[in-house]
Order: sequence, then C-alpha cells, then structure tokens
Amino acid sequence: MTGKVYLVGAGPGDPELLTLKAARLLRRADAVLHDDLVSPEILQLISASASIQNVGKRCGTKTIRQEEINFLMVTLASAGQQVVRLKSGDPMIFGRGGEEIEALRAADVAYEIVPGITSALGAAAAAEIPLTDRRASSAVVFVTAHQAAHNERADWARVATSGATLVIYMPGKDYGEISRSLISTGLSSTTPSAIIARATTANQKIHRTTLWKLAEAPSLPAPALLIVGQVVGLGASCEELSLIWNTHSDELLQAELPATATP
Amino acid sequence: MTGKVYLVGAGPGDPELLTLKAARLLRRADAVLHDDLVSPEILQLISASASIQNVGKRCGTKTIRQEEINFLMVTLASAGQQVVRLKSGDPMIFGRGGEEIEALRAADVAYEIVPGITSALGAAAAAEIPLTDRRASSAVVFVTAHQAAHNERADWARVATSGATLVIYMPGKDYGEISRSLISTGLSSTTPSAIIARATTANQKIHRTTLWKLAEAPSLPAPALLIVGQVVGLGASCEELSLIWNTHSDELLQAELPATATP
Repeated sequence: MTGKVYLVGAGPGDPELLTLKAARLLRRADAVLHDDLVSPEILQLISASASIQNVGKRCGTKTIRQEEINFLMVTLASAGQQVVRLKSGDPMIFGRGGEEIEALRAADVAYEIVPGITSALGAAAAAEIPLTDRRASSAVVFVTAHQAAHNERADWARVATSGATLVIYMPGKDYGEISRSLISTGLSSTTPSAIIARATTANQKIHRTTLWKLAEAPSLPAPALLIVGQVVGLGASCEELSLIWNTHSDELLQAELPATATP
Repeated sequence: MTGKVYLVGAGPGDPELLTLKAARLLRRADAVLHDDLVSPEILQLISASASIQNVGKRCGTKTIRQEEINFLMVTLASAGQQVVRLKSGDPMIFGRGGEEIEALRAADVAYEIVPGITSALGAAAAAEIPLTDRRASSAVVFVTAHQAAHNERADWARVATSGATLVIYMPGKDYGEISRSLISTGLSSTTPSAIIARATTANQKIHRTTLWKLAEAPSLPAPALLIVGQVVGLGASCEELSLIWNTHSDELLQAELPATATP
C-alpha cells in the first residue's frame, strides 16, 4: 500500500465537531502526529494499533522543530504508512500547514488536506456572535495578536478601522496591549468585545466587555480568542457569563459566573 | 418533549465534511429546513420520518421571505419538534444566522448553534492555499463581492491593501468588476488569484490567474469563491487545472482542464 499524509483539521475542541472524514481517517491511520491542543477525547478515536505522537510545539519541556515534524511525515509515508497530521482547528488557518505541504511536495509524498472548523467559528457559535451580520459588519478578519500588535508588513490600522469584525487568535495574556493598539488605530473604545476561552469544550469561558475595558478583563485560560466588533453586541447577553458546552446531551447550559471583580 | 431549533452548518459540499454532531442531529430531527445549496447526498442522511423543506432563497421560481423561515422554525419547535435549520457552510458566516437567532430568542424558543466548515476553508483545502501562511500573509478577510464592490460603511480599500489574504464570497459572474475595484484601491495587478467553484464536490473547478487577468477568466458555476493574495502563489500549481474531489475513495485526483481560450 502506498503511503500518504492527510493534513486534517481537528476542529475547535468538542470531539463531535470533527468531520465524518476526519473521524474515518483517524480510525484507519497507521500513524498520527498531533498538535498539543488536540483533546484527549479526539485521540481516543484513533485505532489501537496506530502509533501516536504529540508533535506540539509545547510538548513537555522539549521543543520539536518544524523540520523534525516534516521529516517524520515524510519518513512514515515513505515506509507505506497512512499518516494523519492532526492539527487543531483548520490546517490552512495559522499554524504551518503551508510549510508542511511544501515539504511533502519536495519529497514527492502523496498528501491530501482535510479542512476542519477553525476556532473562530467554534467561538462564534458558542458565544452566539453572527460574525458577518449584515446589520453591523461587512466582513470578518482573522489575525493573530502578534500581527495585531507588531506587524509592519500589513497595515493593521487599515483593517482595524475598516468596519470588519476582528477575530484575534492567540491573544496571550496582555489584553491591555491589544486594547491600546486597536484604540490607537482609531477604533472606538466602546466597541463590544468578547474573550472566548476553550470554546466548545466543557471548560468553556466567555467574558463580554468593551474594547476599553478589555485591559481589565480576567485572563482566561488558553486556548482563547478575542472577537471585537459591533456584532459582539448582537450576542446573547452583555453580562459576563459562562456557557458550559455539554458535548453529551448537546444542551448549551448557561450559568452565571461568580462576579470577578475588575478593579 | 420540548421543541428546539438547531442552526447547523452543512459545510462546503462534500457530505463527509459534515461534523459528527450535524450528522447525528440530521438522523434524529423531526423537521429539516434547508438552504438551496445543501447537497442531495447530505439530505439523504435525514431520517425517513422527518419533514424536509427547502427554504432556499432560490427555491424554484418562488422566493421565500426570511420572516416565513423564522415563522416555520418557531411554529415547528413550539409544537415540540426537534428542528434542524441546515445552512450551507457555517451558520455565523454570511447568511441570516443572526436574524434567525433573534427571532428564536424573541419567541422564547430553545436553540443551539452548531458550527460548520465555511466554504473558504473547503476551497483553501481543495486548492491547497494556506490562507495565512506567515511567509506571505498576516491575516485573512472574508467578504462578499457586494461588499467588495459597493460597501461604503466599511472602507474596503483599507482592507484590500492591508496585506491580508482576501476571500470573496459570492463573486457573481463579473470578475472584471472585482478586479477593477481591487486594482483601483492600490492592490497590485500581478497579485495571484484563484476562482474555486463547487469546492469539495465531484464538480469542483479551480482556475488560477492574476488579479489583472481575472477579468478574462471563464465564468465558473456557482457556488464559487475568489481568493486573492500572495498565498495563492503557494498553491499546488499556477497552471489552470481541475481538481476532482472524490468523496468515496478520498483521493484528490488531478486532471488538466481542456484549454479555455481567454481572448
């Protein structure tokens, strides 16, 4: 059997948000190389006979280099294995999907890309934020906090003040820096904003605020993302709340968080 | 049993790109209200006892109003039914997801949003375009052609020239107008561009070109979308080609299209 690498999106967290195709490929894989953020429930779908390796960039204290991941994919597929390279979210949104594809092409290894639900869509569903609601937004932008704060190639201010909804991936802990950066570009300090952590998992947390008050927001656990724009105000409630995503009964239970003082 | 409405994303086309959750809800639904663009293969997953209604805006010659869709959802759920409102792609990206949620809230009907793979991600996987490859792009923007050409609220030029990858939904037939609009905002005429039609289905078609030559591109069948940005040049090939998405053997077979003269 000829080896092949499948670059597969694992979705935002909830194992039920895997695609049928991803689930089938995991059941049949000979080897799975997965990101750190892929949940244990998803890894349980993998065949018992498959080799499983965490190639996450934060794998324990050790850091695995991209070249090593590329080498593993090529070596396993060249030995005839069906390899799933399982990436959190979607393989073509952030992360190194493009570089992994180039390595596979260079080695003449067969591959296929299987899209997944990127975390912006998981977060929007969880927080009930219609990202491109025509009454409040004309477009949606996905960007990383690093780009939002430091990028010089893209003129970030142009995007921020265009009227598009902003989804900021990997916001880190310093929401204040993002807040100041966006306000300095001309975005209104009253713009509704939400931090959504661990969306679509049992540990999901949502904090709704404004761009100005973002600096005072509690630091929510990673992975989190930040949505900024008038569409956030169309969400379920402007109160701070926690939405508990129950993957078993598919009920979305709402429970108020204990008041977290924001001095 | 208490009625409930599930706003469910059907994904980009390939039935295997449904989520496990969407497939489960379709098997158990009492009623399904679906968009025109949802494929027949996906509708076959619905329980034989369920009522199925096409509420697509292009349903035959008749046009169904959004108010009627809202009324149907509320009436069916109020009668105790489990209702799936099946939307192509993701329910929070374009379309009227936000308005449907508001109608359900106003009627005090229980609901839940189930994300799906939006067509940008299906197209990017099919055409092997890493939308946010750090070597060529800092961000990705989803926008409709209508917004790209006419929007006044959002300053489209700001987004277009920011360095972000542009994904233009519903580009229509007049690629020339989009091309002129983007070049007039200052985007280079040599920017790599791709039209991706019916991504992830057996009828998938991909045409790679530049922003300048977009005006001469063949008009591909809807649904299609347009990706503009340097990351398009990182795709598999700059040759015009058709990628046939084989949903049964999960092989991505590549076949050259017959040369389509672009006078």
